[in-house]
Parts: sequence; C-alpha cells; structure tokens
Amino acid sequence: MSVELSPVDRLKQSAAIRNPLVRNLLSEFFGTFMLLFIGLTIVMQFILTHEKLNTWININMGWGFAITFCVMMTSQTSGGHLNPAVSFLMVTLGKLSVPHFFLYSIVQTAGAFIGAFLSYLVYYDQFQKFSGDRRVLVGALGSAGCFCSFPGTHVSNLTAFFDQVAGTGLLCLFLCVIVDKRNKIPDMLHPICFGLLLIMIGCSMGMNLGYPINPARDLGPRLFAYFIYGKEVFTYHNNYFWIPVVAPFFGAVLGGWSYHLFVGIHIEDPDIDEERPVQRMIEDGEKSDRAEHKRLIKGDNH
Amino acid sequence: MSVELSPVDRLKQSAAIRNPLVRNLLSEFFGTFMLLFIGLTIVMQFILTHEKLNTWININMGWGFAITFCVMMTSQTSGGHLNPAVSFLMVTLGKLSVPHFFLYSIVQTAGAFIGAFLSYLVYYDQFQKFSGDRRVLVGALGSAGCFCSFPGTHVSNLTAFFDQVAGTGLLCLFLCVIVDKRNKIPDMLHPICFGLLLIMIGCSMGMNLGYPINPARDLGPRLFAYFIYGKEVFTYHNNYFWIPVVAPFFGAVLGGWSYHLFVGIHIEDPDIDEERPVQRMIEDGEKSDRAEHKRLIKGDNH
Amino acid sequence: MSVELSPVDRLKQSAAIRNPLVRNLLSEFFGTFMLLFIGLTIVMQFILTHEKLNTWININMGWGFAITFCVMMTSQTSGGHLNPAVSFLMVTLGKLSVPHFFLYSIVQTAGAFIGAFLSYLVYYDQFQKFSGDRRVLVGALGSAGCFCSFPGTHVSNLTAFFDQVAGTGLLCLFLCVIVDKRNKIPDMLHPICFGLLLIMIGCSMGMNLGYPINPARDLGPRLFAYFIYGKEVFTYHNNYFWIPVVAPFFGAVLGGWSYHLFVGIHIEDPDIDEERPVQRMIEDGEKSDRAEHKRLIKGDNH
Amino acid sequence: MSVELSPVDRLKQSAAIRNPLVRNLLSEFFGTFMLLFIGLTIVMQFILTHEKLNTWININMGWGFAITFCVMMTSQTSGGHLNPAVSFLMVTLGKLSVPHFFLYSIVQTAGAFIGAFLSYLVYYDQFQKFSGDRRVLVGALGSAGCFCSFPGTHVSNLTAFFDQVAGTGLLCLFLCVIVDKRNKIPDMLHPICFGLLLIMIGCSMGMNLGYPINPARDLGPRLFAYFIYGKEVFTYHNNYFWIPVVAPFFGAVLGGWSYHLFVGIHIEDPDIDEERPVQRMIEDGEKSDRAEHKRLIKGDNH
Repeated sequence: MSVELSPVDRLKQSAAIRNPLVRNLLSEFFGTFMLLFIGLTIVMQFILTHEKLNTWININMGWGFAITFCVMMTSQTSGGHLNPAVSFLMVTLGKLSVPHFFLYSIVQTAGAFIGAFLSYLVYYDQFQKFSGDRRVLVGALGSAGCFCSFPGTHVSNLTAFFDQVAGTGLLCLFLCVIVDKRNKIPDMLHPICFGLLLIMIGCSMGMNLGYPINPARDLGPRLFAYFIYGKEVFTYHNNYFWIPVVAPFFGAVLGGWSYHLFVGIHIEDPDIDEERPVQRMIEDGEKSDRAEHKRLIKGDNH
Repeated sequence: MSVELSPVDRLKQSAAIRNPLVRNLLSEFFGTFMLLFIGLTIVMQFILTHEKLNTWININMGWGFAITFCVMMTSQTSGGHLNPAVSFLMVTLGKLSVPHFFLYSIVQTAGAFIGAFLSYLVYYDQFQKFSGDRRVLVGALGSAGCFCSFPGTHVSNLTAFFDQVAGTGLLCLFLCVIVDKRNKIPDMLHPICFGLLLIMIGCSMGMNLGYPINPARDLGPRLFAYFIYGKEVFTYHNNYFWIPVVAPFFGAVLGGWSYHLFVGIHIEDPDIDEERPVQRMIEDGEKSDRAEHKRLIKGDNH
Repeated sequence: MSVELSPVDRLKQSAAIRNPLVRNLLSEFFGTFMLLFIGLTIVMQFILTHEKLNTWININMGWGFAITFCVMMTSQTSGGHLNPAVSFLMVTLGKLSVPHFFLYSIVQTAGAFIGAFLSYLVYYDQFQKFSGDRRVLVGALGSAGCFCSFPGTHVSNLTAFFDQVAGTGLLCLFLCVIVDKRNKIPDMLHPICFGLLLIMIGCSMGMNLGYPINPARDLGPRLFAYFIYGKEVFTYHNNYFWIPVVAPFFGAVLGGWSYHLFVGIHIEDPDIDEERPVQRMIEDGEKSDRAEHKRLIKGDNH
Repeated sequence: MSVELSPVDRLKQSAAIRNPLVRNLLSEFFGTFMLLFIGLTIVMQFILTHEKLNTWININMGWGFAITFCVMMTSQTSGGHLNPAVSFLMVTLGKLSVPHFFLYSIVQTAGAFIGAFLSYLVYYDQFQKFSGDRRVLVGALGSAGCFCSFPGTHVSNLTAFFDQVAGTGLLCLFLCVIVDKRNKIPDMLHPICFGLLLIMIGCSMGMNLGYPINPARDLGPRLFAYFIYGKEVFTYHNNYFWIPVVAPFFGAVLGGWSYHLFVGIHIEDPDIDEERPVQRMIEDGEKSDRAEHKRLIKGDNH
C-alpha cells in the first residue's frame, strides 16, 4: 500500500530527522546558505554592472524578499533566525539556550560561506568582464564589496560600530513588534512583514556600510573573500572586520528589549477579562509560560 | 515558581504601566521618535549622496514602511497617531479629549526632536563628507532639508499652505477609509495599508515641499536644526516654518470628514437586518456608542 | 441620549442618503474626483521635474495605490468602478442597468474634470516654473501630457486604438479574475490586488500612450485642459482624442469575457457536492442567481 | 426561468468544458499566452525606450505581478504552472502524469508564441521608431532581446547552463515552500507570494541572461522571432538556444527536492497528536494520500 504514498511522503518516511536540534541546525544552515546565495548575487548585479542593472531599490527589494522567503522556508523548523544576532536576542528572551546559540551561529556562518562560493560561481564570468583576471579590493575596479562590507575612508570605525548597533537594533525592535501576539499580526503575514522591514532598513541605514546587520552575513562571505582578495579583507580600514561581527549583538538586545520596555509590556492583555480575579490570571499565565518554557528548552522552536 | 516566567513577562510584572494616559504618551513619544529616526536617515541617504543611493522611490517606500511598522508598534496602546494632525482629527471624531490632544502633540514633537538628534549622530561622518565642517541651509551644499521642509523660491507660502492642506487631507481621508469597519479591511492589514498610502502620497504630493503633512515631523527636527543652522531655519522663505505646523490641522479635518460626508455615512450598515424593528436598532447603536465613548474618554484608545 | 452618539453617527442620522442610485452617483463622482486629483499630481511630479523626482516606477506605484484606496473607499457603495469602461462591462455582466451606466459615466467624467482642476491648483507654481506664463501642448516645454494622453508622432491612431483595447482588456480580464469568487481571493485583498494589477499594466502597456484605459480619466481632464491649451487638445494628432474614449469599451468587454470564456466558466463549482443530484444543483443555482439579479437591478451593487 | 440567470452563468451552462484535461490545456494555453503578452511588452518598454521608461525594477515588478495574476487566473483549473519546468517538477512530485506533462508543455509553448505575436503588434510602431524597417539581432539597434534571451559574448554557455539551473532552482525551491501546507501560507496569498518571489529572482539572477527560467517563455517567442530575425536566433552564441530550454528542467527538480530534503520533510506534522498511536497515523496518512493520488491522476489538479 505504501506505493500510493506521494514521493515526498515516501522520502519523509525514510529520511525525516527526528532530533529537533539536528533538524534545526540543518535548517539554519540551509536557510542562511540560500539567503546569502541570493543576497550576494543581488549585490553583484549592482556592483558588477556599475549600478546600472540593479539600482539601490533593487538591492532593498531583492534582499527584503530574500529574507521573506528564506524565513518562510525555515520558520516551522528552526524559527528562521538566519542571523546570530537574532539568535542571541532569542537567548535573552528565554527562547534559545546558550549552547544552541553557539551551534546556530556556527552553521549560519558556514551556510553564508557556501552561499558566497555558489554566488561567485554563477557570476564568475561577470567578475572576469569587470576586472579581468585581477581581483581588486576597493576603488573603481574593486569588487570585494560583492561579498562583505568595506566602509569608505570618511566613515570612522566608531561610527561603523554605532551604525551596526542602530541597524540591527531597528531589525530586532520591529521583529519583536511583528511576532508579539498582542499586536495581532497573524503568522501568515510575518515573512512578508520581515521583507518590508528589510526594505525600510535598506532605505535608511545603508549609507555608511550597506546594512550588513548580521554577523554571519558579513563574516561568512568575508572568509570566502579571503581566498580571493587575501588578508586585506581583514586588515582593511584598521581591522574593521570585527565591527559587523560584534556590534549587531549589542544592537539586537538593545532594539528587541527597547520595544518591550517602551511599548510591549504595557499592552493590556486582550484575553484577560476584567471581571476575572487577578490571582487566577497570574496562575494561568505562569502555567502557560512554564509549558512554553519547557518546550523551548527542548530546542523545539517552531 | 515565578522563575519559570519568560524574561519579558517578568519585566511586565514589575514594570508595566497601569495608567493608560502615561502608557499612551510613552507610546506616542517612542513611536514618533523611531519614525523620525528612520525617516530622517532615509532623507539623509537621499540628499547626502546627491540623490544617487536613495532615489525618490526609496524615499516613498522607506517612509511608507516606517509608518507601517511604527504604527504597528503603537496601535495597541495609543492608537498609533504619531502625528498631531491625526490626533486632532480624532478629537473631532470624539475619540480623543482635547487635553489629551495637547499632551499627545507635545510628546510627539519631543520624540521627533530626539529622532532628529540620533539620525544626525548616525550620519555625522556623511555630513562632514558632504560639506566639511560647514553646515549650509539650502543650495548645492545645503543639508537642512535633511531635517525639515524648505520650499523652493518659486513656491509661494499660499501654495505651501494649500499643499499641506491637500497632502494631510489625503492622508486623513484614506486613514478614515481604512479604519472604517464598514469597508471590511481587517485590523491586521491596517499598518500595511497605511504604508502603501504614504507611498501614494509621496508619489503625488511631494513636488512642492516633500510631503511633511505632520506638524511634529516638521517642527521637532526644525527645533533640532536650529542648533546646527541657526535661526534661519525659522525665518527662511518669509517665516515659512509655521505653515507645515498649522495647515495640516485644517487638512486633517477636511479630509477625514469629507470621506464620511461623501461616502462613509451612506454605506448601509451590514449588521442591520432588514426585518429588525428600527426602534431597537437605534437603541442598540446608542448603547454600544455609549460604551465606546466611555472607554475612549478614559484615554484607552486601543 | 443622542448626545452620546459619536459625531459621525450623528451626521449619519441626519444626512445619510437613502436612495441607492443617488448615493452611488455621489460615490462614483467623489471617487473619480479623488483618483484624478491624486493621479494627475503624480503625472505632474513626473513631467514638471523633467522626470527627475518621479520616475516611471513612481507613476506605476502611485497610480496603482491611488486605485487601491479610491476603490477601497467606494466599493461598499457604488462598487468602485471609477471608469465608464468598467461600468459598461458590468452592464454586459448583468450587474448594472443601461440607464445607470450613462449616469455613472457622466458623474465619473465630471469628477475627473474637478480632479484636474484641483491638481492644477496644487501645482500651479510648478507649471509657472516649468514654462513661465506660457502653456505649450507638447515638446520640450509641453505640459498638456499632465492632463491627458497625446501620442508621439510615430504612433498611428490605429495602433493607439489597438493599444487602448489591449490595455483596458488586461484591466478588465484580471478584474474579473480577482472578483470571481471561484478564485477565492477574499474581499479584503481586492483593493490591493487592483493596485498591483495597475502597476503591472503600467510596466507593460505604457509605451504608446501612457495607459489611460479609462474614458473618464482621459476625457474629463482633456475638457479641463481645453481651457488652458485651447482646442488643439482635441484636434491634435488627427483628432486622436476620441480613441481613449471609445476604444476602452471594446477592450473592457473583450477582456472581461475572455476570462470567463477561456477559464472562468470551466472552473468546477467548489460548493457542489459530487453526491448531490444534478437536478437540484441547477435549481439552487437558479434561485440564488435570481435573488442576486433582483438585488442588482435595484441598483444596490455592494 | 433561465432568463434570470446571469449572462456568465448562461454561458457556463452552454459552454463549460467537462473534460478536465481539455479544460486544463485550454487554461495553460491561455495563461501562458497572457503571461508572455504582458511579459514581452514589459521587456519591449525597457529595450525600445533605451531603458529610459522602464528601468530594471519595472521589469522585476511587472513580470512579478504578471505571474501573480496569470497564476491567480489559472490556479483553480490547471494549477497555474505556465512553465514546462514547473510541470516537470509536478511529475516528479506525483501530481501530474508524464503524458499530461508533454501536452502541458506543448500548449504552454504555443501560448507563448501567440503572446509574442500580439505583443509585437501592440508595439510595432515602436519597433519602427527604434530601428526603422530593419530588425537587428543584438547590439546598439538590436531588438531580438525583446523576445528571448541572447547572452553577451563574455558569458560562456557553461555558465549559461548553470545560471538557468540556479534561477529555475530558486523558483521551484520557494514554490514548494509557498505551497507546502506545513508552512501555513493560505491559498489566497500564493499568487502574491509568487509575484514577490519573481521580483527577488529578477534582482539576483538577471545579470547573465535576464532570468528566462521557463522553457516555454524562451522557446515560444524565439520561434516567433525566427520569422523576424531569421535563423540566427537559433545559431547565435554557438547554438545557445537549447540551454534555456533544457537547463530549467534540471533546476526545477534540484530546487524543488532540495527544499523537501533539507527542510520540508523534517517539519513535524501539526495535525499529528503526540498521544495518538503511531500505527494509526501511518494508516491515515496513506489513506488520504491514496485519495489525493487518485484525484491527481485523473488530471484534476486544483
């Protein structure tokens, strides 16, 4: 009788991973891999055509919807973080354990590395057309910006740090707005909202560094770029490279918790009936919290 | 047992503001602060790159989705006005008291001021690159347009006034369309609709002044710009500054009430059964109106 | 007790129009007025800035969302046609009577005329900057294209006719797709879908004439332009003016019915249970059709 | 009594096609015809205005929403493939039989051919303006790119093949994400999601060939272009023409199955209760699979 199962269900029966952590790590790896594969080809289409085919609005919309669909793909398994700074925020929100955070970060960065490799392959001929056999870091023939961020000389590293705190802060602030059930945005609209949010950030926070706001997105491709452009990808601009790796973690926590502190915790819970005794409200709250807490600690984030 | 509460719920238990007015003022302050922080960096990314990175469509989409997410964040507390003209319309619609309107306007303007400060900080290096240590109001090196509106010499103040009435009128007309339950747009789509509405207004009403259509959005950053560019931000163009502060109030009332007068009040109420006695309909209507009225007067606008 | 009614409800009690036809005509007038007021300022922002502030994508998105919100505003009263060609399609679909069609067309064109007037007022200073006190029809200083379509000399009137059939055909074909309940697009998404549809048409059918595809949209502003540019607005290009007035009617019927003929009527009705006797299905179908038919003939299109 | 049926229902009674296969083929033909009619006029508006009216973002958004509405139109009949590579993926997923796949592919390509013809007719005057009576394949006066893809000399055929695998892979990967019920995207949002997906692909995978990623989309118009530009449309670039016909099939299978392998099959089924015996789960799964399988084999894909 199993012959009448659909091909996907047959595969599911034989190959479905039962361990939530393994499944989530695979999901984060594959999601970040696809995100960077798509995202870097978007940037390449901007830089390698001298900003003629893609203009800045294509960067914003392309990356926005890349987030939309990569999160849509992975939200039911790993929660669709695709960003170590988002994973770190989830740790502070009690929704991810610290060991899992480190594992998430590693596979996200590895996925970003592989995505960079594949995007380079697709547009290898375009790199050759752009600068021949040479690969120059920055300047008129510079193409390293296809992989990761390299600030202009007029942007200080202090500003760069603040920029990454601000950009990741906006991302995580509104991420918390979108997923907070009290704001009544249904799950089906979350991925589209994340995409529109990225478009907004790209229109506002792109002038200094081009909004990396994701340690894996910047470090993974930078590691790949090392094999093409050499160690200057790390030493450039007074060792700038660590800023988009470190600053986003500060921004994520600042942004996410700012929402809760200034707005979120003050929203009256719509499920709470005014006539209901206060004592029972608290008990129920604790009970459901405990249940969710247990589920999350088990690594089951969907 | 409270140790198993999520971190956000622990914060909520200890820090949630019970007073609706205080909560709403904090929400309007924080929402307008974020709106201007995002919005002004969008304009800076347009002006300081000589309209090369951001083009006009980035301005429209960036501001549109900034409205989307800032309203989404604050709609469950203060109603997400973020604009004194919108708050004033709510007064005329019986949904906000006059004293609350004044308080809303003050915190909105204060939030806009702080937002201007923070956006200046993020792009301080870009201002330096644009015009060195000098800060020029208008012209080739002028950057004051990053903060608030400065009409060209060919636009009269009379036209400017009419422009702000028209722009804010469109905003408030369609705001009433979107939130009118008789038009059956569910709550979850309201923030996205507001964003698309702003995109539309930016494509149509931006040529004279760049669609400020919000007294707090124009006055707050203008106060901040005073510390950079001096008193000329107020005296420029025959003391133009008061126009985007005053005209939007006229536009808001004109626009909002035009919808109700020309279309809204003529929609047949879908809940009213034809067979039901007229007398009872009116009673029920009054009762629910009274209930809503009481709730709103208490400052509880969600 | 009536003192506790909301201000809008008080207005409703005293001023609501009971006659469906009068209400619908007012709605179509006001909707087309707003559509053209917004739409023409969008075109002006394109032409009068020498295509620098608005580019073509702003035209597409601005007009798209203008349709979205003007239809959203009027769909619960008149059905939100805002276009005589759409009204004519509704006649052929049995959803509007012929006398009502003529009345709809007249108020739509009148609304478009008033919209043109108001948009001219908002941007009068910009017209003065563009060409001084002179008003030139076409060419480098030509601004009549701000109001209605004027084909280039290389586009024949035959092509223009075909173009308007094709453009209005696409509009009405997909309009029927969107509103056909068998395609399961809920009412709340209709206005947004119409907006996206207009964006699509603007990206594809704009090269010959700029997609007027609406007799009221072209004729109303042309009548207004007559007072500015003189009779040449009618005689230009071998009396081209009648083409965007007449051709859309052919396109609307061709497009709308093509959908039903090629796809719509072949969709199996999802409500029909396979086990149910065929005879009863047909009876039920007729009954509900009769009920809808009666309701529509009474001019009650919501 | 039948006189009171609506005109569409009268047509339905007399002309509805009962045979699912015939209905589906008509639907795929008409859908791909409309898709190419719209899509090619979008490209023409880009090329024939020297990329001045339409820029690349118009191409992306125009094609995106063309997919949205053509899929919306045909999803309830044929499933809205409009692309032989998508149909082939459905074969591997057990949702389409091999003979039906061949029939689908033929009518899709025929529809694309007719669409190319009609778009040429609408913009014939523009072709004349662009290059007079001559029709040149590529270069400054080249216009064959209006119909199908012609890679630049710096792009090798190997890269072209890989590019088409990658582009179609992304399309089919995320197509499977969107339609997988476990990801909880409701049917009503599918067409819009497909449109946003196409926008994303156009921003990322357009630099080498302009993302044909659809054998019918490339071959149908190429056949039409043969009558205008001669046999060079096939011999150009070392007989490149077969690559966008063949490569998409590899990409479709690779992309679609990658989703299921890396993410989809590992999602826990939300309908399965933890307390329920495993044996019964499998039986139920098989039963519903069998039912679906039977329905699909009958050619009834909606």
